[in-house]
Amino acid sequence: APAGPSGAIVTELRCVCLNPTHRIRPQMIRHLEMVPAGPGCPNVEIIAIMKKGNKVCLDPEAHVVKKIIQKFLNSSGKQKN
Amino acid sequence: APAGPSGAIVTELRCVCLNPTHRIRPQMIRHLEMVPAGPGCPNVEIIAIMKKGNKVCLDPEAHVVKKIIQKFLNSSGKQKN
Repeated sequence: APAGPSGAIVTELRCVCLNPTHRIRPQMIRHLEMVPAGPGCPNVEIIAIMKKGNKVCLDPEAHVVKKIIQKFLNSSGKQKN
Repeated sequence: APAGPSGAIVTELRCVCLNPTHRIRPQMIRHLEMVPAGPGCPNVEIIAIMKKGNKVCLDPEAHVVKKIIQKFLNSSGKQKN
């Protein structure tokens, strides 16, 4: 039988985050980007855009990262205009 | 006493989202941006960048929006590389 891929479509993995961390100072985060798992990358990716402009990949499975996201979600000043 | 602002520093509100919605098709979202409440805007803001390129503001307090975020967080393909 012929060697090599049997017509399998190899989608080039385009994961952005290679070494996600859970070490971050939440108050230094300007905003978070959340990219769901998809054809390009099998993992959800969470990217923190810092106030200094750099980007930090966060580990979506780390408890502290989930807490940061929860805190952001509940951070509204409850001022309904 | 002199009328007018008593030296209060009026920070110009820079909220991006004016009419957030909860009506969205999650599978059409490319990624989410989450901007925590802060000096510029007293509300957390959640912006969905759609696959077609447009941006949609989501209501952070809507149950369905919180479910979408939860689903994204748990969407990893569980493939640890």
